[in-house]
Amino acid sequence: MARTQVGIIGAGPAGLLLSYLLHAEGIDAVVLEARSREYVERRVRAGVCEHPTVELLREIGVGARMDAEGLPHHGFSLRFDGADHRIALTELTGKSIMVYGQQEIVKDLIAAHEAKGHPVEFEVADVELSDVDGERPRVRYRDVDGKPRELQCAVIAGCDGFHGVSRPSAPGLKPIDREYPFAWLGVLARTPPSHEELIYTYHERGFALHSMRSPEVTRLYLQVPQDEKIEEWPDDRIWSELSARLATSDGFSLHEGPILDKSVTPMRSFVAEPMRYGRLFLAGDAAHIVPPTGAKGMNLAVADVRVLSRALVELLRHNRSELAESYSDTCLARVWRAEHFSWSMTSMLHTAPGADDFQRRLQLSQLRYTVSSTAAATSLAENYVGLPFE
Amino acid sequence: MARTQVGIIGAGPAGLLLSYLLHAEGIDAVVLEARSREYVERRVRAGVCEHPTVELLREIGVGARMDAEGLPHHGFSLRFDGADHRIALTELTGKSIMVYGQQEIVKDLIAAHEAKGHPVEFEVADVELSDVDGERPRVRYRDVDGKPRELQCAVIAGCDGFHGVSRPSAPGLKPIDREYPFAWLGVLARTPPSHEELIYTYHERGFALHSMRSPEVTRLYLQVPQDEKIEEWPDDRIWSELSARLATSDGFSLHEGPILDKSVTPMRSFVAEPMRYGRLFLAGDAAHIVPPTGAKGMNLAVADVRVLSRALVELLRHNRSELAESYSDTCLARVWRAEHFSWSMTSMLHTAPGADDFQRRLQLSQLRYTVSSTAAATSLAENYVGLPFE
Repeated sequence: MARTQVGIIGAGPAGLLLSYLLHAEGIDAVVLEARSREYVERRVRAGVCEHPTVELLREIGVGARMDAEGLPHHGFSLRFDGADHRIALTELTGKSIMVYGQQEIVKDLIAAHEAKGHPVEFEVADVELSDVDGERPRVRYRDVDGKPRELQCAVIAGCDGFHGVSRPSAPGLKPIDREYPFAWLGVLARTPPSHEELIYTYHERGFALHSMRSPEVTRLYLQVPQDEKIEEWPDDRIWSELSARLATSDGFSLHEGPILDKSVTPMRSFVAEPMRYGRLFLAGDAAHIVPPTGAKGMNLAVADVRVLSRALVELLRHNRSELAESYSDTCLARVWRAEHFSWSMTSMLHTAPGADDFQRRLQLSQLRYTVSSTAAATSLAENYVGLPFE
Repeated sequence: MARTQVGIIGAGPAGLLLSYLLHAEGIDAVVLEARSREYVERRVRAGVCEHPTVELLREIGVGARMDAEGLPHHGFSLRFDGADHRIALTELTGKSIMVYGQQEIVKDLIAAHEAKGHPVEFEVADVELSDVDGERPRVRYRDVDGKPRELQCAVIAGCDGFHGVSRPSAPGLKPIDREYPFAWLGVLARTPPSHEELIYTYHERGFALHSMRSPEVTRLYLQVPQDEKIEEWPDDRIWSELSARLATSDGFSLHEGPILDKSVTPMRSFVAEPMRYGRLFLAGDAAHIVPPTGAKGMNLAVADVRVLSRALVELLRHNRSELAESYSDTCLARVWRAEHFSWSMTSMLHTAPGADDFQRRLQLSQLRYTVSSTAAATSLAENYVGLPFE
């Protein structure tokens, strides 16, 4: 039976970053991932790094490629009534965001692990956590060759996402959730972005978002009904609907191009409380989901593991448990801030089925106020660029 | 048949202020009121004048008693988690509010009419508007002695509140509304306020508000179920519930005293669009209702008649109709801002029946954020003290 100090389930941004932070402090950790390296390095997910995320990646020395290839953004647009209203993030907050895909951060972190020889095992199977409430929690799994393995740990970190095995291994957590009566159809297209910045669009036909991954690849989203089938959306329909929702009175022109990928994502808020059970600590999507409107999902995962790495260093190196005890409360304060912000942006920008004129008038008044009041715009901007870490 | 330029239905703050503003510009107006002078001068309603209202009353010369007897407030408290968090209105916005009862403004305006000999007829009955879409709209009514009268006008201003005759006299207006699943139990008590400023309280038992009318009279509110019967609330129960909701960890002490008045008010949002039909212009509660949480009802009425008085001066003195044509749109922008703000404050502070943990966590996160972010507190404060008139 192998031993490590921290067994980390999942090689997404949360698991890899936690492993990296722990190794940097001399704590031993092993990352186990069910998917292949190729899969996780290509998985298209989040694309916006908030300011504290960018700063952290720089500080720990894994930000070089992000700074070279990422796209720093100093504002975004709210588009409604056929016109753009810019939220000047940097003017309002002194901070900016970085458009840099989650899979690029994953690549950078895997390369950093490889360079330093820190263990990441891909394509493991049948992962089972046991004794998570005891002194010696263990992870049983099959390695890439199908051989049964067992890893004895001081602590297990569940970083394996919403559908992972970690959360179900922690009995008694309280799930708190909200479903939204719509979903996002996301499209990746090989065409230069049609605008330099993100455009969040409120339209009577539904929300639309213009975003990008690189100077050559555009990311676009359409609000669609909950449980919408992707087959309902041939490429032609997607472009025509995007053009209708993104239209402006001065003739905005949407760049079309080959669609590389399209998928429908449900909109959900979910939090499991507390984010810890015995010696199992949950981080990132394993503990909470936000609707994507505020671009907070990956950034919350980064914030979690920053808190967790410090708590585990204190616990495992100095045998002090205060930070481990307060881990859940510390993270949940930021999690619920992000849940509220994401809910608020989602509510302001989407057309709920059955919404009445009252709801629409409130949305338009909120949008007009947000772009005309420095205080309101600053409040939106400071949440968007990311409130400071605790 | 008598004639006047502007027939004003209703001697509340909207009607009286409009009459005063018009007379000051040399426009002839008659105010008709169904209630007695004593009744309207004692009617307890709104108690918070926002900054633009205070400035306007001063500018036109009816602010002397308000400045002598009103209570200027430079902040209020959000109370939750058993502690107060002050919203420093004046520090954040440079402006303040004035605690001065609506009935005091009514008294001042009636006295001003009396002093200048401007006509206000009380205790009129059977008011009927006719030909409001023609060139010569008329008001038929019975005067205080029961004699039938008819007033021919160039324009009629409907300032007679939500239940008045004016709005039903304008066919085709679109009502847009929202009911809230709770009501406010309001109490007027002869006891000094328990705190210098207003306290808006979020509590799991329901919202509570500590306010005041004078150094000797406290105004208190409790969230109660919709359609609650006042008989369910003997004085003892009111004090005990107020104490429970207003409790703080440092032992807040509520001053009790004789209850002078108590009543249950439903919470409703309502807007009739547009605020004009032909030569009938609606202003104040006749056109729109907000829930009382943001203290915007009377202030919106003041904003309406400021716009209307300018429009009518242009129309009747200079025969220019642009401002009359834009009256509704101009007012509705401010009305919907107030509707959104009032809805937002109501949603943040009340416990909806059937609200789940998700809703409660969002409320607490919003409250904690509002009191910890300068931008968020400023946004709340600038709406509360009143955004500048157009």
